[in-house]
Amino acid sequence: MRDIKDIFEKVDAILIKSPDENFFYFTRYHGMWENSFAIVFPDKIEVIAPPLEEGKAHFYKNKEEMEKLLKKILNVEKIGFNGAILPHNDFLYLKRLLKVKFVDVSKELKYLRLIKRSDEIAAIKRACRLSLKILDETEVEEKSEKEVVYFIECEMRKRDALPAFPTIVAFGKNTASPHHIPENKKFVTPALIDMGAKYRGYCSDITRSFVEGRGRKLYEIVESGLYLAIDEMREGAKAKEVYKKVENFFAKYGYKMRHALGHSIGINVHDGYSINEKADFVLKENMVFAVEPAIYLKNYGIRIEEDVVIRKNKAEIIR
Amino acid sequence: MRDIKDIFEKVDAILIKSPDENFFYFTRYHGMWENSFAIVFPDKIEVIAPPLEEGKAHFYKNKEEMEKLLKKILNVEKIGFNGAILPHNDFLYLKRLLKVKFVDVSKELKYLRLIKRSDEIAAIKRACRLSLKILDETEVEEKSEKEVVYFIECEMRKRDALPAFPTIVAFGKNTASPHHIPENKKFVTPALIDMGAKYRGYCSDITRSFVEGRGRKLYEIVESGLYLAIDEMREGAKAKEVYKKVENFFAKYGYKMRHALGHSIGINVHDGYSINEKADFVLKENMVFAVEPAIYLKNYGIRIEEDVVIRKNKAEIIR
Repeated sequence: MRDIKDIFEKVDAILIKSPDENFFYFTRYHGMWENSFAIVFPDKIEVIAPPLEEGKAHFYKNKEEMEKLLKKILNVEKIGFNGAILPHNDFLYLKRLLKVKFVDVSKELKYLRLIKRSDEIAAIKRACRLSLKILDETEVEEKSEKEVVYFIECEMRKRDALPAFPTIVAFGKNTASPHHIPENKKFVTPALIDMGAKYRGYCSDITRSFVEGRGRKLYEIVESGLYLAIDEMREGAKAKEVYKKVENFFAKYGYKMRHALGHSIGINVHDGYSINEKADFVLKENMVFAVEPAIYLKNYGIRIEEDVVIRKNKAEIIR
Repeated sequence: MRDIKDIFEKVDAILIKSPDENFFYFTRYHGMWENSFAIVFPDKIEVIAPPLEEGKAHFYKNKEEMEKLLKKILNVEKIGFNGAILPHNDFLYLKRLLKVKFVDVSKELKYLRLIKRSDEIAAIKRACRLSLKILDETEVEEKSEKEVVYFIECEMRKRDALPAFPTIVAFGKNTASPHHIPENKKFVTPALIDMGAKYRGYCSDITRSFVEGRGRKLYEIVESGLYLAIDEMREGAKAKEVYKKVENFFAKYGYKMRHALGHSIGINVHDGYSINEKADFVLKENMVFAVEPAIYLKNYGIRIEEDVVIRKNKAEIIR
């Protein structure tokens, strides 16, 4: 699969039913768009929706009108659908209604979204810079985990962004839990902030760890793991080999990887591909990843995460 | 269907795969819980998850371990699943893996969630009161639509809540669009704020309209429609008849309904049931609805929305 043309060699149209982030990917429509359909043809996109949204669409008032529109616009032989998101009952309903061949194109859609267009890279960069700016302004002294979360997420909101995922702030022992749920614990080191903004539809994902004293040594190992990974991430590199390089590096110090080294980011913060020991895809120009090496001990953990764009001979860290 | 026991007359266990709000409904676990399963038996709930979350679960390290756990714990003959949410590909995968009968129990789960437990009603009330308090503190004079949204959503966050849906603030002509996306337009009347908080897993949904001058008359008609609806909403009332009462009332003045009169609220702000012309369910004690009669003209619209709990002889407005 190189681009969307390959999908249209298999199917005549792609049917996306909301909620599915591909609805935004193809239409660029923000808003709720409940019970809406985007129908993607090689040369145009048609939208079928209830009459509550702002945008260009074939609006329907009731189920009968919706079915009529679907049949009329999807008068084709082979329909591609996103089996990774379309609920089973919707699949059965649509197949019965349209009585044509349904082809699952979820893998192709996932890969299509892995390689970003330049406007998508620009949007991710804006989301990253917004997050980095907020991180810069964040004060932790004497604050609780929850208070820091509230500050960060309010600042996002004031800048027209939303949290791309629930912000993680962990102090002390809580840093040992990768998906810690913030509580009223007051600031102590080690501390960890994992945050990302969704801005105009695209996500960032950034983690900072703060340590003092003996934790510095571990911090340096994780940081070296991060730069080792980024140095390997260029066009043509195999994702699982990047993972293994970092795994082997940590192993030299007796540490293990507890989760993936990174993941693609885009419309979703976890946008489809994970850089782990089984990742059998090859890095290509204009893929964008969050890289987040981490080491968790019994009493604390360190994770550092940057977002990078793959370029021909290197990965560009978004700053 | 009266309660969950009726589901277990059809199936031996219910399999919920995240993301699905029923995962929280049954486990009461907050947190991300990606790629996790809740398996609900008549007498216990088992959770299968990757090892990143905080909570009691059978943690798996890789796909093989996950499959082994699924087979071991789901050693039954009939599995109930949520066909309204489970993606088609996951259905195919799980059916192939477990090789037993899969029964869609989505309708039963939806109905189960329609009648709230007392702890759920208490949670919705907390979410409503939090929203009403923020609305009280919201100032609109000289502010733009977006600035009002930011204020409201920051206040939610400071109170440990999140927006249950993207807050709608519409000024002037923008009130004519039911799902208006806030922009930089400065405050003028008519104005509309539609907001809801999700607090500890449960949602509120409240709308206020502000009018001056000749809009007052229309406001009074919508408000009368609201109280007419609430007066009809008691145990035993048919949802579509409540809708029709309001439709007929508005028709007397020459106005039409442009969307449903209301919807059930709970873990989701649209929690499964809509009060529209085709709603063939009967109201029962402990159902909770957002009631939102509205009239939209060409140049402005008015919507008023309250959340109510159905009681034996009346509906209780949550204040």
